[in-house]
Amino acid sequence: MDPRKLAELLEAVRDGSLDVDEAMGKLRTMPFEDIGYARVDHHRSLRRGMPEVVYAPGKTDEQLLGIVERMVSSGAPVMVSRVEPRQAGILLDRHPEASHSETARIVTLGSVPEVSGGLVVVVTAGTADIPVAEEAALTASFAGARVEKIFDVGVAGLHRIVPSMDVLGRAAAIVAVAGMEGALPSVIAGMVACPVVAVPTSIGYGASFGGIAALLAMVNSCAGGVSVVNIDSGFNGGYVAALIARGAEKAG
Amino acid sequence: MDPRKLAELLEAVRDGSLDVDEAMGKLRTMPFEDIGYARVDHHRSLRRGMPEVVYAPGKTDEQLLGIVERMVSSGAPVMVSRVEPRQAGILLDRHPEASHSETARIVTLGSVPEVSGGLVVVVTAGTADIPVAEEAALTASFAGARVEKIFDVGVAGLHRIVPSMDVLGRAAAIVAVAGMEGALPSVIAGMVACPVVAVPTSIGYGASFGGIAALLAMVNSCAGGVSVVNIDSGFNGGYVAALIARGAEKAG
Amino acid sequence: MDPRKLAELLEAVRDGSLDVDEAMGKLRTMPFEDIGYARVDHHRSLRRGMPEVVYAPGKTDEQLLGIVERMVSSGAPVMVSRVEPRQAGILLDRHPEASHSETARIVTLGSVPEVSGGLVVVVTAGTADIPVAEEAALTASFAGARVEKIFDVGVAGLHRIVPSMDVLGRAAAIVAVAGMEGALPSVIAGMVACPVVAVPTSIGYGASFGGIAALLAMVNSCAGGVSVVNIDSGFNGGYVAALIARGAEKAG
Amino acid sequence: MDPRKLAELLEAVRDGSLDVDEAMGKLRTMPFEDIGYARVDHHRSLRRGMPEVVYAPGKTDEQLLGIVERMVSSGAPVMVSRVEPRQAGILLDRHPEASHSETARIVTLGSVPEVSGGLVVVVTAGTADIPVAEEAALTASFAGARVEKIFDVGVAGLHRIVPSMDVLGRAAAIVAVAGMEGALPSVIAGMVACPVVAVPTSIGYGASFGGIAALLAMVNSCAGGVSVVNIDSGFNGGYVAALIARGAEKAG
Amino acid sequence: MDPRKLAELLEAVRDGSLDVDEAMGKLRTMPFEDIGYARVDHHRSLRRGMPEVVYAPGKTDEQLLGIVERMVSSGAPVMVSRVEPRQAGILLDRHPEASHSETARIVTLGSVPEVSGGLVVVVTAGTADIPVAEEAALTASFAGARVEKIFDVGVAGLHRIVPSMDVLGRAAAIVAVAGMEGALPSVIAGMVACPVVAVPTSIGYGASFGGIAALLAMVNSCAGGVSVVNIDSGFNGGYVAALIARGAEKAG
Amino acid sequence: MDPRKLAELLEAVRDGSLDVDEAMGKLRTMPFEDIGYARVDHHRSLRRGMPEVVYAPGKTDEQLLGIVERMVSSGAPVMVSRVEPRQAGILLDRHPEASHSETARIVTLGSVPEVSGGLVVVVTAGTADIPVAEEAALTASFAGARVEKIFDVGVAGLHRIVPSMDVLGRAAAIVAVAGMEGALPSVIAGMVACPVVAVPTSIGYGASFGGIAALLAMVNSCAGGVSVVNIDSGFNGGYVAALIARGAEKAG
Amino acid sequence: MDPRKLAELLEAVRDGSLDVDEAMGKLRTMPFEDIGYARVDHHRSLRRGMPEVVYAPGKTDEQLLGIVERMVSSGAPVMVSRVEPRQAGILLDRHPEASHSETARIVTLGSVPEVSGGLVVVVTAGTADIPVAEEAALTASFAGARVEKIFDVGVAGLHRIVPSMDVLGRAAAIVAVAGMEGALPSVIAGMVACPVVAVPTSIGYGASFGGIAALLAMVNSCAGGVSVVNIDSGFNGGYVAALIARGAEKAG
Amino acid sequence: MDPRKLAELLEAVRDGSLDVDEAMGKLRTMPFEDIGYARVDHHRSLRRGMPEVVYAPGKTDEQLLGIVERMVSSGAPVMVSRVEPRQAGILLDRHPEASHSETARIVTLGSVPEVSGGLVVVVTAGTADIPVAEEAALTASFAGARVEKIFDVGVAGLHRIVPSMDVLGRAAAIVAVAGMEGALPSVIAGMVACPVVAVPTSIGYGASFGGIAALLAMVNSCAGGVSVVNIDSGFNGGYVAALIARGAEKAG
Repeated sequence: MDPRKLAELLEAVRDGSLDVDEAMGKLRTMPFEDIGYARVDHHRSLRRGMPEVVYAPGKTDEQLLGIVERMVSSGAPVMVSRVEPRQAGILLDRHPEASHSETARIVTLGSVPEVSGGLVVVVTAGTADIPVAEEAALTASFAGARVEKIFDVGVAGLHRIVPSMDVLGRAAAIVAVAGMEGALPSVIAGMVACPVVAVPTSIGYGASFGGIAALLAMVNSCAGGVSVVNIDSGFNGGYVAALIARGAEKAG
Repeated sequence: MDPRKLAELLEAVRDGSLDVDEAMGKLRTMPFEDIGYARVDHHRSLRRGMPEVVYAPGKTDEQLLGIVERMVSSGAPVMVSRVEPRQAGILLDRHPEASHSETARIVTLGSVPEVSGGLVVVVTAGTADIPVAEEAALTASFAGARVEKIFDVGVAGLHRIVPSMDVLGRAAAIVAVAGMEGALPSVIAGMVACPVVAVPTSIGYGASFGGIAALLAMVNSCAGGVSVVNIDSGFNGGYVAALIARGAEKAG
Repeated sequence: MDPRKLAELLEAVRDGSLDVDEAMGKLRTMPFEDIGYARVDHHRSLRRGMPEVVYAPGKTDEQLLGIVERMVSSGAPVMVSRVEPRQAGILLDRHPEASHSETARIVTLGSVPEVSGGLVVVVTAGTADIPVAEEAALTASFAGARVEKIFDVGVAGLHRIVPSMDVLGRAAAIVAVAGMEGALPSVIAGMVACPVVAVPTSIGYGASFGGIAALLAMVNSCAGGVSVVNIDSGFNGGYVAALIARGAEKAG
Repeated sequence: MDPRKLAELLEAVRDGSLDVDEAMGKLRTMPFEDIGYARVDHHRSLRRGMPEVVYAPGKTDEQLLGIVERMVSSGAPVMVSRVEPRQAGILLDRHPEASHSETARIVTLGSVPEVSGGLVVVVTAGTADIPVAEEAALTASFAGARVEKIFDVGVAGLHRIVPSMDVLGRAAAIVAVAGMEGALPSVIAGMVACPVVAVPTSIGYGASFGGIAALLAMVNSCAGGVSVVNIDSGFNGGYVAALIARGAEKAG
Repeated sequence: MDPRKLAELLEAVRDGSLDVDEAMGKLRTMPFEDIGYARVDHHRSLRRGMPEVVYAPGKTDEQLLGIVERMVSSGAPVMVSRVEPRQAGILLDRHPEASHSETARIVTLGSVPEVSGGLVVVVTAGTADIPVAEEAALTASFAGARVEKIFDVGVAGLHRIVPSMDVLGRAAAIVAVAGMEGALPSVIAGMVACPVVAVPTSIGYGASFGGIAALLAMVNSCAGGVSVVNIDSGFNGGYVAALIARGAEKAG
Repeated sequence: MDPRKLAELLEAVRDGSLDVDEAMGKLRTMPFEDIGYARVDHHRSLRRGMPEVVYAPGKTDEQLLGIVERMVSSGAPVMVSRVEPRQAGILLDRHPEASHSETARIVTLGSVPEVSGGLVVVVTAGTADIPVAEEAALTASFAGARVEKIFDVGVAGLHRIVPSMDVLGRAAAIVAVAGMEGALPSVIAGMVACPVVAVPTSIGYGASFGGIAALLAMVNSCAGGVSVVNIDSGFNGGYVAALIARGAEKAG
Repeated sequence: MDPRKLAELLEAVRDGSLDVDEAMGKLRTMPFEDIGYARVDHHRSLRRGMPEVVYAPGKTDEQLLGIVERMVSSGAPVMVSRVEPRQAGILLDRHPEASHSETARIVTLGSVPEVSGGLVVVVTAGTADIPVAEEAALTASFAGARVEKIFDVGVAGLHRIVPSMDVLGRAAAIVAVAGMEGALPSVIAGMVACPVVAVPTSIGYGASFGGIAALLAMVNSCAGGVSVVNIDSGFNGGYVAALIARGAEKAG
Repeated sequence: MDPRKLAELLEAVRDGSLDVDEAMGKLRTMPFEDIGYARVDHHRSLRRGMPEVVYAPGKTDEQLLGIVERMVSSGAPVMVSRVEPRQAGILLDRHPEASHSETARIVTLGSVPEVSGGLVVVVTAGTADIPVAEEAALTASFAGARVEKIFDVGVAGLHRIVPSMDVLGRAAAIVAVAGMEGALPSVIAGMVACPVVAVPTSIGYGASFGGIAALLAMVNSCAGGVSVVNIDSGFNGGYVAALIARGAEKAG
């Protein structure tokens, strides 16, 4: 699918340096490695600028170790998300050089080199939103972004955000993490010039419906510039923000 | 059900000034008038401090005129809500002294005397929320409250609310009307000391689901002191606020 | 945001008793204290008439103790809601003078002085609604209201509410707590002249959907004067009622 | 499926009075008449004690007339429900002896003979619920029940139901019709000894969700003895009540 | 609310055999006993023909024992529903004469005398629906009905219901219990002449949504005569059926 | 993506009969034609065995005519679904040889040659489901299947399906179309050996929620062998059934 | 219901080789065996081409063993689905010859003979979808289909599916298993000519709502030829695919 | 709220060039203009880099003209979204220099100067999604972005996107617009390195629920880098993308 790769391949066929069966084979097996229960995508870091991230839930220990093994041996940095403490222990036993954040539920081996440009700011409405925010911050760091964090500035006491206006104003992208009524992203988007990535959390009870109320509020934001990721998806919030910040960088 | 009325009745029975059958009859027919399709509740203004409000939708013209007729003849002020222009025309033909607000979809004949005490402030997030806000304001006025209105102070430009802080600070109750993400009540409740009655509106589109997103946001407000009424129910928002303001008054 | 504070500050700047940098600093740091994972809002009791209430779920023990510590040291009364027994134990170890209600899941240190005026009445439909009702009652007491409680007067046996009509008639605000079909607030609002704050509970099964059925019923109440808070939110039910009762008082 | 019919048929086969192919044919075609777009069920009145009722929506004029034609020609009484005025006009043109209730949206030709026993009482919460109640009442009458109607006794003014307690106490089945919060069936079921068939209506707005709020409330009734039919289904409400009343009769 | 009681009371007042204060007192305290956490309704068996049923969930052991104690001492039969094994043990310790069905989660002390008339038939679609069916059957028996049970006749093998047609044909009311697609009540209602009380169960997975799919199917039944109770509410299914059967009896 | 096409292309490159740029061009432009507002997929009939079907809603007249034009000029048969009468008129004006079914809302030009094998049977629960069934039948015919239709055999009168058992038994695939409680597919799937494609319709009212109740019932079918398509999607019901019938054929 | 059986029976009655009572008895008891808590359907393998599959959840150990016992003794192969490890242990103790797949949660005794024709291909979007896919594969095998499996080809790295295009192209039916956004079936259906049976899984979090997001996506597939089964229903996915593949076979 | 403005103001107060009352006044009235029904936010273009966009629905003609008038007179470019044809006519009558796109439902007066940097690419799944895509494209252009458009590359014919890979690879941000199953953003995000802003549309029917199915699919995208805006919100999709592209530019 990468047009340049395809052109090179076709030229090799024309040159006779590659026969048709070999070309067919290359076209089929090149971009990933099939290990039965998973097809590890070594090309992703080229194609997307980010190594593949391993989502831990639902994988057996054997599958988790196997996938990480293949990625490590390909030389790319590795990040495993939503890791349970038990899974983290197994990964750290095998790879003692790995880092583990229990709050963010993330294990990393290496990281993408830091980019000099755009800043990602991660903001939470409350203290209980911190784990999701840490997942966002760690993901963005892993992806090469500089990150700053501001916690507990919920809309019921908006004056608490005032001293952080300078930091917010310097951001290339803001990740706004909030549960309950999910109003924080709207309020922030009304004050800044960069995109706001809203992460609804499942913090709340009753009619918060595990984050649906916050998700709906964020999707309906009256402030232009807010886009939304899945409930509790600190990972994707941080990932989208890092992509935005990198764009700001690359343009430099 | 009113214990004093019951005691008087029992005493009249004991005194012989009322026989048992009459007492039974009185107990049954006293508090309302049955006109077939409706049971008009003349006692409500005593029991609840507010005359019964007539909800127009689903009533035939004949029913609407009949119910208003009985209430007018009982001497109480009358308010008809959710009136379509055609229905309003019919009511005004029969009762030329009535007032009609097309924006608020309300027809009134008379009103409850103004109470000297508590102030009701009606606030909207956007311009499109004004009809619901007018319904709230007119209902609260009808119920005897003093009312002030502040429009278009949505959370995407919160600085617009600053010059209205004084008015908000003087309120006995605030009606906060908002659609889309419904964040305004939370923000206001964080700044004031009185109860905030949140009215979600159906303003918005897509995942606003006709006001459900705003309703959920308001029910999940992280700011204590917010309670919620039905979507687009300017009527009940104004009614609850008037009851609160009256309590403030009565206590005086 | 408090206009008088702002005016004083500006005058101090003009007088030269405060230089611009200091003024900037004051404007930024005055209203709260940043302890990293939380921004404790010491001004809330001035601004809202109520100290900040700490919501326990999702906070680590360290965070919970830290936040309470700062609030206690500022001299304000403190209330922690939705406390699990284990958390309560930790709080009581550190603050032996604290009170703990296991039914209401609340820990308090001190309380707002009782206000002489309005009465809050807390009513439940069933016995299983009592824990939510106790949370409401304790919150309202903490906020300075006088409170009376009436339990188990559900609409399937409405005559059971008759002997309590006197108490209901004296209320400045009624908190009506009900699960299942959530009809109690409508019935009570038809009988009294004060606002009714409806608290849906998650009591029920099947199509009660953890309280949604009751929430919807309450939001759709045909009786004017009912407003609604979140499912199982005894806290906000009691808080709103206390604000209403205080208004009644203040007006005195 | 009727065991006696089957036994007779088998005996006829054994007797030689019916050969196997004929028996097969009879078994297949006996219980209905296939007119292409519909299979008219002439046996229903035997099997169920009620003639088939024709549901008008979605049928072309030709289909509607054709189905009614076949039923009339079989001698059974016919009821067509949810008839639009235009459809009613067409039916009355063809069958001038038919009766049409515009409020109940029903056309009937004949009716089931009145049963001497059980009484069906149809109650509504509000005036706007009357059309659904009329559909219930007319269906129950068509099915042979005696019917009485009580309108506008909603739970916000419960004292209005007191003078009707006698009628309610005599009912074999009560059809309770209510929109909005749908509390009426619970309240009535707490006062009577017969089954209450609850009919939620789409009366209301906002979070009534076209009757879902009422439906959920009714399904969650805390009062034993309430069962529920579809939103606005006066038809099925009346039908179930008539079956109950008939049972009471038949037992006599 | 019982008119005859009221007439007697009024006559006693007139006769001077009861003074006004006493009459007021009687009117207030007669119909129930307030034990703080519950208001036990001793009049229910007179008013509704059924003793009050105690719903166990959410009650403390002390409350459960206390309520049962008062009911037992009033001489009425008692039924406790949704009893957990631990609660049942406590009840049986105190009342060794009680009966406990673990499948139906019911404890009873005594029962209403059997009525000679109407038969209740309880049918299930699958084997997994049996616990809900047993709850329905035991409730109906407790309420004095004769009960027969037919299990595992789901619509994917409808011929399995044929041998039970005779029993179904003799029923005064049928309780049809089904999860998954909930089609059984429609199919049965098409074959019989009595009312069918449909009980959706939470049996199923995925898009059965804990019984919502079955509930919706039953509410939308194309077969007239089906009414529906709450998901898994064997109790109310049996209760409604028993009321219907009793009506059939009483009429005799 | 078609491996044989790719191999031929590579061989042509190797043979020198195609140079690299040409090969690149072919790879990019071969499978469809870009007409700005649409990319017409001429290869679909090769790839999928079915020509592309044009979905009319949301297309301007110009777009609709343009897309059909390109498809007609490529020689493939064309089917346009969900055509409004006005759109059909425009298409027939331009292509007088086209066929239009107003009931099925379909316009066709030509059709796939009939396959000799598998039979598709389309069954409806009611008369009002016929338009969706006609869409299914016409789509299956267009796709080359033999089709038979059986209407109005809903589960409230199941005996009506008996005489059609033979036809059902011969089907390679059955399309079962039903609204309301959507029970028909379960019942049929319990009687036959072929796959049943269930099409929920929006026929019904109230809690049918425009077909959701039927969709959920069908997805939860207790009878193995039922799979489901979108509400009112006669098109996809017929399409899936035709693919199954063709498989049966091809295997021959 | 099987017309040939019925004809034979009638002929036996006519011949006198069977008397009427016996015939009645046969008609009633022939097709299943009533063991109280279940009616085991021995005729299903004749009627449907598949033995009845036992759904384990909600069955007691005694019921599970009893049902399997009757099926084994009738000589048919048996499959038990959704077996918990504990239940599997009990079954294997009694029937040591049984097979158990812990991943697929299935126990089988024997299987339907393999059919020589159609191939079923089971594809998953991710590694976490494998258990559901194994349930589908094992069910299809049990039902006599040849099965191939392709795992982890989700739409975020579509090139990973290219080397499997040949296998997909040979399939008579494809089971596409995916959670999260559920896009895989649409993408596959755009590339192949056979029906795609989509199985949504509950893999995901937040707004995946336990598989609802995937279910909705699949039902709304823009690619004709996709039909859907219940969330996580590998069983029905495999069953439908096996029926399709068998049709392809039988036609041969 | 802008810290530099605040510092300047404080310095002016200290310098005596501004007295306290004036300073208070400035702080209150500076950032917007109150015209009764709206508070026009002239500072937004400074604060957010974008002029305020006027949302037309729910505004009266007078309000719409008044708001546009104030914005025009402040010299900023103006964009009005969701304009009905009638409203557009009125705006064009008053401002003949305005531009109107009927497809995109947008009226603009002027635009933000084009930024030299980042490219926004707008992609649709189908032809019916074009109006939403045009709204996105026009909004992004108005906000200064360069825009390219690719239409009708839905996932049922993914090869159609291949020739557009080059354009996609050059994008700073991609707006992916899709209805029905909403799979396009996931597929694109798997192929590119920039953020993908997903816009669900209400295209579809039945269980698409007006775009909910697409919204859920997009929120659950398994491909990192996708964030989502409201259903049919071409406006916010284009707005977010323009902010991202501008960041890329600014960084340059």
